[in-house]
Amino acid sequence: MNNTRIENVLKRSKADAILVSDPTAIYYLIGKRIYPGERFLALVLRRDQKPVLFLNNLFPFEEDEQVKVVRYNDGDNISDLLSPYIGKDEVLGVDKMLVARFLLPMQQAKLAKEFIDGSIAVDKTRAVKDEHEKELMRKSSAINDAAMERFKKLVYEGVTEKEVADQTLGIYKELGAEGFSFPSIVAFGKNSADPHHMPDDTKLQVGDAVLFDVGCTYKGYCSDMTRTFFFKKGPSEKQRQVYELVKKANEDATKAVKAGVRLCDIDKTARDVIENGGYGKFFTHRLGHFIGIEDHEYGDVSAAFKDLTETDNIFSIEPGIYDPDTLGCRIEDLVIVTDEGCEVLNHYPHEIEIIG
Amino acid sequence: MNNTRIENVLKRSKADAILVSDPTAIYYLIGKRIYPGERFLALVLRRDQKPVLFLNNLFPFEEDEQVKVVRYNDGDNISDLLSPYIGKDEVLGVDKMLVARFLLPMQQAKLAKEFIDGSIAVDKTRAVKDEHEKELMRKSSAINDAAMERFKKLVYEGVTEKEVADQTLGIYKELGAEGFSFPSIVAFGKNSADPHHMPDDTKLQVGDAVLFDVGCTYKGYCSDMTRTFFFKKGPSEKQRQVYELVKKANEDATKAVKAGVRLCDIDKTARDVIENGGYGKFFTHRLGHFIGIEDHEYGDVSAAFKDLTETDNIFSIEPGIYDPDTLGCRIEDLVIVTDEGCEVLNHYPHEIEIIG
Repeated sequence: MNNTRIENVLKRSKADAILVSDPTAIYYLIGKRIYPGERFLALVLRRDQKPVLFLNNLFPFEEDEQVKVVRYNDGDNISDLLSPYIGKDEVLGVDKMLVARFLLPMQQAKLAKEFIDGSIAVDKTRAVKDEHEKELMRKSSAINDAAMERFKKLVYEGVTEKEVADQTLGIYKELGAEGFSFPSIVAFGKNSADPHHMPDDTKLQVGDAVLFDVGCTYKGYCSDMTRTFFFKKGPSEKQRQVYELVKKANEDATKAVKAGVRLCDIDKTARDVIENGGYGKFFTHRLGHFIGIEDHEYGDVSAAFKDLTETDNIFSIEPGIYDPDTLGCRIEDLVIVTDEGCEVLNHYPHEIEIIG
Repeated sequence: MNNTRIENVLKRSKADAILVSDPTAIYYLIGKRIYPGERFLALVLRRDQKPVLFLNNLFPFEEDEQVKVVRYNDGDNISDLLSPYIGKDEVLGVDKMLVARFLLPMQQAKLAKEFIDGSIAVDKTRAVKDEHEKELMRKSSAINDAAMERFKKLVYEGVTEKEVADQTLGIYKELGAEGFSFPSIVAFGKNSADPHHMPDDTKLQVGDAVLFDVGCTYKGYCSDMTRTFFFKKGPSEKQRQVYELVKKANEDATKAVKAGVRLCDIDKTARDVIENGGYGKFFTHRLGHFIGIEDHEYGDVSAAFKDLTETDNIFSIEPGIYDPDTLGCRIEDLVIVTDEGCEVLNHYPHEIEIIG
């Protein structure tokens, strides 16, 4: 249970009541992990009473005097359960992740006067990490740095992406992580030019690029880092040029981070480097995403995202160039925004490295 | 691409257009697995034109002349993209899994006259398996039967639930499965009385119940089976009574299955056995769930679900008694509905078995 977090959410909200349904957001707010599967789960927040959790009788819940729990059974009418806690003339801020099969019946039952996306208040609160969270994020990324040292040693001629990826979870666990923050991406050769490639049976060949986009969780907090190596043979001149552009884009963008700057401007710093180098059309995604108890949290470092950074935001800086005829390359670090600049959480070097 | 499936969905639908957003349903309909993360992905189905897929430029898509693809970039307005394909005076059936952050702006933009839950047509189509799907479901459960033989040999005094659960994925892969249909549930002693227990560091002791609720996927199709064993020592008289009640509930319910019966009546058959045995209040969940390319698909075997079974439905029969003072026990099989009865996909015996 974290009263400060709930108070901060209510402070940031315009709605009369907020219905949080994302299990991760509920975990963030009350400290309990509940996985409801397809069943309804919600935490209703109001300024005038303590949080109310709506929970199917199937799931155990350790009593907590700071949360009122309303139990229900399969088949019960959800709107009927909620109506004592939400005024028909009120604005209800629903979770952005609330699914249509729950939202449409609430609208049909006229549970509230207006339904708006209420997640922004939760998301903006989550985006500012407290001291405890920052410590866990540092530790998670320290494990990720150590893991990268181990991962690069797994490669040999003829090994497949899957065979390498399959060993990463064990290494994370040995290093003290609970598990993945997302399944490891291992991409050899041309596959590194697909930013969403999943490891397959491609065999490693001399001269291939070897891209690792990997992350683990430590006490629930996520790391996420990408490095692109070369196997047994240095890059061609053109590949080197691509690599150095990506490296410069990462480092220039990192220098542009501090509290109070527009996230779109950080994206632009990286994008300008790559565009000026002639590879703009091959940088096909946003520069970064916010991260914490989830690998992707609310908040983008992208042209479309005009919000200002706040101190203690944590996000990724991950420029890439995906030119199938030359090289697919991405270099990604996590940063914590500070008043004067930022703290980079990853310490694995950016320099071109030949492995194997 | 599977035209028959799309035709069947449109036949079952009352809406003018259907917006499918669940990646698994899209895979079922067009045979492509796309994982959009937090980005918008939808397949719009209409009777008067071929399916239209809305896909972020980030994701590769192999061309398919039977699907029109509308590409977009991060930041594009989703309602603007959709509006040429949906009439403002039409009823739009949206996916039950469409999240509020996409649905609320569509409603705000008055993309359609009425928004209804359009998934029922897809779900009812998915619930009736074709011959190819039935073959894959048989094979997936055959692997699960073989896996149970291996899993029960993993136990010894002092081993933890996690240590056992951690070995199950490797065994599935050795037996030809791709992976889990859900993370293995291994529960020792009192933990078996929590139907949603996740494996933890509990150590196995002589006399404990050992519950395995496990499943794998084979060519994308899920298995799901539960057995409850006893470690080194037979059950007490009271435990035996509980076990035999659950076994009888499973077997009587299975005998009650055939095409054209109400799913709630199958549930009742099992529930009556357990209630008459005096343990009704400890059978806290529905009897079963539909299953196929997802472990939990639309369709319940529960008191609330009055629909009739159709030939080639596949669902679980999984009665349980969760009495923390005596025993937590569940016995689960999958069945295919036939005109005359059902085909049970699991062949691992139901009898009391002492392992270790």
